Amino acid sequence: MNYKPSIILVNPTLSQNIGAAARAMLNFDLTELRLVNPKAEWLNKEARSLAADADRVLENAQVFDTVEEAFKDIQLIYATTARPRDLNKEVITPNQAAQEIQANLNNNHKVGICFGSEKCGLDNDVIALCHKIITVPLNPSFTSINLAQSLVLVSYEMFQARVSNPLGVKQWQLQDEIAPYDELLGLLQQLETELDKSGYFRADHKKPVMNRTLHNIFSRAQLSSQEVRSLRGVISSLVNPHGIYSRESKRKKVKPKETN
Amino acid sequence: MNYKPSIILVNPTLSQNIGAAARAMLNFDLTELRLVNPKAEWLNKEARSLAADADRVLENAQVFDTVEEAFKDIQLIYATTARPRDLNKEVITPNQAAQEIQANLNNNHKVGICFGSEKCGLDNDVIALCHKIITVPLNPSFTSINLAQSLVLVSYEMFQARVSNPLGVKQWQLQDEIAPYDELLGLLQQLETELDKSGYFRADHKKPVMNRTLHNIFSRAQLSSQEVRSLRGVISSLVNPHGIYSRESKRKKVKPKETN
Repeated sequence: MNYKPSIILVNPTLSQNIGAAARAMLNFDLTELRLVNPKAEWLNKEARSLAADADRVLENAQVFDTVEEAFKDIQLIYATTARPRDLNKEVITPNQAAQEIQANLNNNHKVGICFGSEKCGLDNDVIALCHKIITVPLNPSFTSINLAQSLVLVSYEMFQARVSNPLGVKQWQLQDEIAPYDELLGLLQQLETELDKSGYFRADHKKPVMNRTLHNIFSRAQLSSQEVRSLRGVISSLVNPHGIYSRESKRKKVKPKETN
Repeated sequence: MNYKPSIILVNPTLSQNIGAAARAMLNFDLTELRLVNPKAEWLNKEARSLAADADRVLENAQVFDTVEEAFKDIQLIYATTARPRDLNKEVITPNQAAQEIQANLNNNHKVGICFGSEKCGLDNDVIALCHKIITVPLNPSFTSINLAQSLVLVSYEMFQARVSNPLGVKQWQLQDEIAPYDELLGLLQQLETELDKSGYFRADHKKPVMNRTLHNIFSRAQLSSQEVRSLRGVISSLVNPHGIYSRESKRKKVKPKETN
């Protein structure tokens, strides 16, 4: 049983692209790499360097002379192309493909995704053997996409389709717990009291509006308890300076000699 | 008017990655590249070769010494990270980010997406200045993703969000215009200066951490220009009281009789 698709590179011509492809595959938890009639080394220094630590994908790569052999045990094969081809075949996006592929993998189907060479992509004869075509939506005036780049996009979409909750959080939530509301209110009250003392609310009728502005800012920030404490410390420090540069002392202060 | 986000590469160290980034950008119709303190040439043979025919993106790249300068005219900045950081900041997927970003671009907001160096990614101090974090969902046992690969994924999602304009669903966006970054920096500098004077940073070694906390809070709040001005007024008022209840006068102040 294999619940992950195979990646099939047909006639890859640059070692670094095979290496980069291996790295991109492992980034998205794909490990089965098939090479059809490769025109470049895939275990040399260049390939390994680009693979970063994904060497094992390169080392386990299977090599075939023809696409037919590489396709043999696969049930559903997708061709990737950057430009439209004169073939009567369904063309879908990586996102659509990922949904389909995952459904088929869940059904224990063996799936392969096929990428052509750097220069000319897949031959129409190979595409004709594939079930569907995946095309990445690209800037129509610059469709020259790197092999590993198109592979990373397809792998990324498949990973997202497989892992329902990719970042491990259902909804956005802050890392730290948000402070209970009374802590926030304590901060806002302290600020209001100090601003009152300082004469900030010059016109009484402006006070509600200004307070609302401040409440809005600090509630939007969704402060943690620690952050509330920090801001309270900031306010206290601003109104009651206690350090060597305090307002009390600064008039008398002599700039200390710098040590060498 | 600019309806496309800027891509900001912080300390990129390999020419070929800058070239590959330019190609990936143009594949998805992005053209504004900013380089912060690049450690590698971006117009040499290596970079051009990897850019394929996207040389013009390299040629038009703007170069800055610091992130603060690169951020200056931008209103909404996203940091990309591969691994979780110990920062209390919203983390979203490229797909979620793309929806948000498009909504903000439609609102004429200037958006930047920030990528770190190949070796260590973005520094926490840079992330603290960004509004949100984008993390690509990756195979947890192999999260070493190439710089250009993560860039291609983010660009791809943005292209899809822009081109398809999906569903007409109202995405999250702020009602008011977000302040340009230099305004936020002005606020943070004013706060730091005043806290310095007040002796808030008692121990010098704590200063960077405390500053990061404050940067993180205020960047998360996505302040409008008006709000930045309000907060600057708040700080000024706290340190230089000017009203009837000012600290100068409060000692002599007699509690006024309550009216019945």
